[in-house]
Amino acid sequence: MDKSRIVRELAALVGRTWVISDPDELAVYECDGLTFLEKARPDVVVLPDNTEQVVEIVKLCGRERLPIVPRGAGTGLSGGAVAARGGVIIGLNRMNRILEIDLANQRAMVEPGLVNIALTQAVQDDGHYFAPNPASQAASSIGGNVAENAGGPHCLKYGTTTTHILGLEVVLASGEIVRFGGKTQDRPGYDLTGIFTGSEGTLGIATKVIVRLLPRAEAVKTLLASFRAINAASEAVSDIVAAGIIPAALEMMDRHIIGALEAWLRIGYPKDADAVLLIELDGPAAEIEAQANQIKQICVRHDALDLRIAGDELERALLWRGRKGAVAAVGRITHDFYLQDGVVPRTTLPRVLREIEAIAKRHACVIANVFHAGDGNLHPLICFDSRREGELQRALAAGAEIMRLCLSVGGSITGEHGVGIEKIDCVPLMYSPDDLEAMRRVRAAFDSDSRCNPGKLLPTPRSCGDTNITYRPHRIEREGLAQRL
Amino acid sequence: MDKSRIVRELAALVGRTWVISDPDELAVYECDGLTFLEKARPDVVVLPDNTEQVVEIVKLCGRERLPIVPRGAGTGLSGGAVAARGGVIIGLNRMNRILEIDLANQRAMVEPGLVNIALTQAVQDDGHYFAPNPASQAASSIGGNVAENAGGPHCLKYGTTTTHILGLEVVLASGEIVRFGGKTQDRPGYDLTGIFTGSEGTLGIATKVIVRLLPRAEAVKTLLASFRAINAASEAVSDIVAAGIIPAALEMMDRHIIGALEAWLRIGYPKDADAVLLIELDGPAAEIEAQANQIKQICVRHDALDLRIAGDELERALLWRGRKGAVAAVGRITHDFYLQDGVVPRTTLPRVLREIEAIAKRHACVIANVFHAGDGNLHPLICFDSRREGELQRALAAGAEIMRLCLSVGGSITGEHGVGIEKIDCVPLMYSPDDLEAMRRVRAAFDSDSRCNPGKLLPTPRSCGDTNITYRPHRIEREGLAQRL
Repeated sequence: MDKSRIVRELAALVGRTWVISDPDELAVYECDGLTFLEKARPDVVVLPDNTEQVVEIVKLCGRERLPIVPRGAGTGLSGGAVAARGGVIIGLNRMNRILEIDLANQRAMVEPGLVNIALTQAVQDDGHYFAPNPASQAASSIGGNVAENAGGPHCLKYGTTTTHILGLEVVLASGEIVRFGGKTQDRPGYDLTGIFTGSEGTLGIATKVIVRLLPRAEAVKTLLASFRAINAASEAVSDIVAAGIIPAALEMMDRHIIGALEAWLRIGYPKDADAVLLIELDGPAAEIEAQANQIKQICVRHDALDLRIAGDELERALLWRGRKGAVAAVGRITHDFYLQDGVVPRTTLPRVLREIEAIAKRHACVIANVFHAGDGNLHPLICFDSRREGELQRALAAGAEIMRLCLSVGGSITGEHGVGIEKIDCVPLMYSPDDLEAMRRVRAAFDSDSRCNPGKLLPTPRSCGDTNITYRPHRIEREGLAQRL
Repeated sequence: MDKSRIVRELAALVGRTWVISDPDELAVYECDGLTFLEKARPDVVVLPDNTEQVVEIVKLCGRERLPIVPRGAGTGLSGGAVAARGGVIIGLNRMNRILEIDLANQRAMVEPGLVNIALTQAVQDDGHYFAPNPASQAASSIGGNVAENAGGPHCLKYGTTTTHILGLEVVLASGEIVRFGGKTQDRPGYDLTGIFTGSEGTLGIATKVIVRLLPRAEAVKTLLASFRAINAASEAVSDIVAAGIIPAALEMMDRHIIGALEAWLRIGYPKDADAVLLIELDGPAAEIEAQANQIKQICVRHDALDLRIAGDELERALLWRGRKGAVAAVGRITHDFYLQDGVVPRTTLPRVLREIEAIAKRHACVIANVFHAGDGNLHPLICFDSRREGELQRALAAGAEIMRLCLSVGGSITGEHGVGIEKIDCVPLMYSPDDLEAMRRVRAAFDSDSRCNPGKLLPTPRSCGDTNITYRPHRIEREGLAQRL
């Protein structure tokens, strides 16, 4: 590959300012939010301004047989935006315009680089918002949210990102521009919008996104309940959902999180609390008043130590303060942590949480739990110190055991962080060879040479011996997670 | 093709009772709910009992290069279950078992032949239900609902069938069994469950379906409002949705329907009513009480002639009686009707209804409207008399104009009835050649020889000259709807 020629050609397409090829500058693009696994430097980073430039870049990469790796804000936690096999990272940050807002039909059309929260900010004065709210929403891009089918506390009631994506303009690896879905939801034909959402950059590059906007709920009520035993908190979660209540958020924090938060923010959780539930209701004022009463009764029935209800916006912010600071608080009690992401049926939460405790003991580490309890989406934070010999390996081993545990109760290896490079070797634990083959054929229907974000999401079939892969084989060798399972 | 040998082989697989080859008996399978367009007789109908039999049937059809056409209850309205190019209809009615009900996690696993309402009946004593409720729900099968991504009044609040399908076992044209999705909703990989739902039998045959069950709402409230002008009713619909209320049903009937119903059932709508809205709210009692009050105010603001609220289950049934009898009532005032299905942005309803009136005038026919107003899903009933020369053609021409109208305001050619054979020539009006090519490639990823339900959903690319099609070419020739557009 004549890199300097490719850089020149890219510069001719987008302008020299928007092509990054200096090794020091490329270092920024070596990883995304997954920082402690392998890093990989792209050959070039290019920052297009519009769809036509994306088309030309993709065609150039096609001629040069270079992998293309779309990247939004780089906040992903599974390495999805890492150039695992080199090639060209197409950074979409400049394509961050809001192209259309149609409040009457509750739709907007945006570019993929738009930061998630910027869309809500643009429509909130008119009483609307964009529902998906991953923890990264102040930084992550809507294109990245689409790629990873991002979640967040609101998923329980409002669904993951896929529920809110109605249409896409996509540039395929061939350079063709295709349009999936549209502003009208009911459409004939295959739901290609749905298949693209969560495809982790392996099917093409979204250049326009049509999203659903929701009207703000009339009222919001936030409750915080503390429990002496984590089991009691889990059972309260089950009872709330069984009562037909779907809170806008139903989050749990365990005693490790509570301890770390108290040491830092002195929020004033009861000293003997083993678990805290943060419950947010939204909807008509009359509805949430009634639901809050039901929840109070459920919490009392499970011997809640303490129950607080926010009286105003300030108190609401205080109740959320702990939840929002939870991951940062853990950062204060450990040098490093491995943030896992798994899903279990809600009814298995008490058992799963007990077993995570046992896994922590076996690996002599602390595992703190803060998670979306309502939909069984766990986020164990496995604490370790990368400076100490063997601790990263222990953390990874504990993570692998947690994944195995999720699968053993009928769950999933990822809820909202995606497969990326982190879990690619674990995908065959969830799908049969035939199931994976069906996915590979779908991938090939969009990208016959596997040049879109290679090395992500779908493991290479062992039997093919990688003979189809014609680009640079600097595949990162590492002990796969699957081998540890 | 040696038909008698194939019949013998099928009989060896499933038993002679379950193979239909007698021409008189096959006549039943010449059409589905779309009765006035072309009919087509399959070569054979086979009724398997289990997945393994489906696999063997599909493999046999593969060897013989015969089209395979899955069929549920045959209630579809776009001809999706018609053997448009001959071959073997695989009737799934015997595969109607409920395999698992998991109320704690609100899931069920069923076979595709299960009648929609039977699932709700099985779980209603435990306070649950299956949300998709197409008008055909007492007859249509869940497999058919999956194939067509069926709708119904509840879609507005609860989404079409795709929202409620979490996993599938599918037999591909190759005879492979693959599993898409599962009981846990958050899963890595492509959303193949989503792509299969609404694929109209073109990707394979679903043999198991994992569905979401919902808890019954605490309370239901049904309102009926009559308006002097259809515009006022349309504006009331917009205002209700703009107020952030999402009713469980928001249905409109126009003066033709009102007249037909009065002549038959004497429901007692006001004499000068030009439109009736049926509004159903469900949720916590406190919530719907408040919402009903808001809706009352909105209706008053739009000069409602009359507003009734059901006080009990009996009164509720009375209010629904008109809506449920609407299509039958039209059957009493016309010899035949063509039930169209299109979608428009809700905000364009007043204009679209005026233009449908103008289309009726131009074609000198009555077009009655009963529809899911909340999501802009129109169901114009175009009245005609097939015994009179030229009337069917006029009705089809009016239908084509309505489709063009839907597209011109940014809508869709079908909301819930599917493309089938009815609208296959119109699909290119919604998608560019590149968009269609992407769909064709996805189809080929599942069924490389296009043997699954050929002649449906995706039009044959003109440029290919049909050279890939190796099965019997008794394609039905007719004046395509697209030619009339």
